[in-house]
Amino acid sequence: MLTKQELIKYCNDARQNYLDHVSIDCVVFGFHEGQMKVLLLKTHHEEKWYLPGGFVLKEEPIEMAANRILMERTGLDKIFLQQFHVFGDPDRSKFHNDLYKDMLPTQENWFAGRFLSIGYYALVDFFEVTPQPDQFSESCTWRDLDDVPELQLDHELIFKTALDALRLQLNYQPIGYNLMPKEFTMPELQKLYETILDKKLDRRNFQRRILAFGILNRAEQPRKGGAHKAPYLYSFDLENYRHALTEGFKGGW
Amino acid sequence: MLTKQELIKYCNDARQNYLDHVSIDCVVFGFHEGQMKVLLLKTHHEEKWYLPGGFVLKEEPIEMAANRILMERTGLDKIFLQQFHVFGDPDRSKFHNDLYKDMLPTQENWFAGRFLSIGYYALVDFFEVTPQPDQFSESCTWRDLDDVPELQLDHELIFKTALDALRLQLNYQPIGYNLMPKEFTMPELQKLYETILDKKLDRRNFQRRILAFGILNRAEQPRKGGAHKAPYLYSFDLENYRHALTEGFKGGW
Repeated sequence: MLTKQELIKYCNDARQNYLDHVSIDCVVFGFHEGQMKVLLLKTHHEEKWYLPGGFVLKEEPIEMAANRILMERTGLDKIFLQQFHVFGDPDRSKFHNDLYKDMLPTQENWFAGRFLSIGYYALVDFFEVTPQPDQFSESCTWRDLDDVPELQLDHELIFKTALDALRLQLNYQPIGYNLMPKEFTMPELQKLYETILDKKLDRRNFQRRILAFGILNRAEQPRKGGAHKAPYLYSFDLENYRHALTEGFKGGW
Repeated sequence: MLTKQELIKYCNDARQNYLDHVSIDCVVFGFHEGQMKVLLLKTHHEEKWYLPGGFVLKEEPIEMAANRILMERTGLDKIFLQQFHVFGDPDRSKFHNDLYKDMLPTQENWFAGRFLSIGYYALVDFFEVTPQPDQFSESCTWRDLDDVPELQLDHELIFKTALDALRLQLNYQPIGYNLMPKEFTMPELQKLYETILDKKLDRRNFQRRILAFGILNRAEQPRKGGAHKAPYLYSFDLENYRHALTEGFKGGW
């Protein structure tokens, strides 16, 4: 907990620098070789965990705010964050509204206000990045999706909504460029989809559908090695991949 | 333009009742028998048009705010509005910020603040609803998509982003229940998709793909009439339709 002096200073700073009533929360999913995780913070003196979040500077575009917040709180830079939903329940920040209510009158306590939170998500290779906690947090860690601890505020709802948005995205946008090696086999790519969707997919249907999207190039030579039947290697066709990112799949309407 | 007295009153009311820095804009698309329109407002004394928009009451969930705003400004009630994006450029409300800057000092003028706008969209049968302008507007009208007038602020960006979101939605969610008659032919449903996408679709591919979604029931008897080859009639399988609305299509991964 902050002391009263710290709270007053924090409220004055916040009132001067940030937009009232608006916050941002980031859901960063990590993938590496068939494992899927989410990035969480644990603050000092609180049992529950948080998504990395913060506020919008008075003259700052919201996309820049999302990236700055993620950088400040976790040390992660240059992550492509995608806006997915605004969480606007009037009681969503009640825990924080009440936290310091005995310390400072409501009208002087910036944190007693209602906050709408704009949710952003990203999917990165967790092996490539090492998160660092900020001053408010005792740890900043990748947690397995099936071992997510109890989250503060409505952060479980934000996390689950982001996961739904990521899964939906598999139906209309390509995924995986920053997650797969330069060349990969069809089973390796299928594993990415299965991990995100948390279910097994039919091998032949997967291959037929992903090839129809037109975002893969097949190498002429199969992978060399001792295997009886060497698998074909694929790489992303970056031009078609980027086109599909903005225009949707060829397989669309 | 408001008089100075009206502006002062409006600012005082707004400061007391609404969240600072947050607005909502609604993009309501209308469809009827192969015609597609968007609902726009024209205010008194301004040449440019607006999307119906407004502010969030201090204790109001944002979904309720979106519906109240649409009702107050256009008379349309019980429209299912879907959140699609937050528009957060710091300069997006500059026109309104400057409009009354000579009349009232910035710190007293609530409208001089920065506003993030949460965008909502809906698709309705425009034949079923008659919009009514509110007190600020001289007209509230359905305009053809290819005849949208010049829009104020960043409302053209909001409109276009909503249209992209609606088109994307055709790839992962069913559409049309409130837009088609109870029974319809395959070409009638195809016309809905073609109108939204603004392009011709292949008849056989459309039929194959839409049937694979499993949201249609085919009537046993073809439509009666004088035609040489009577077309089959379809209706939505409401259980599967609603399931696909929340879970995505069977045709997904």
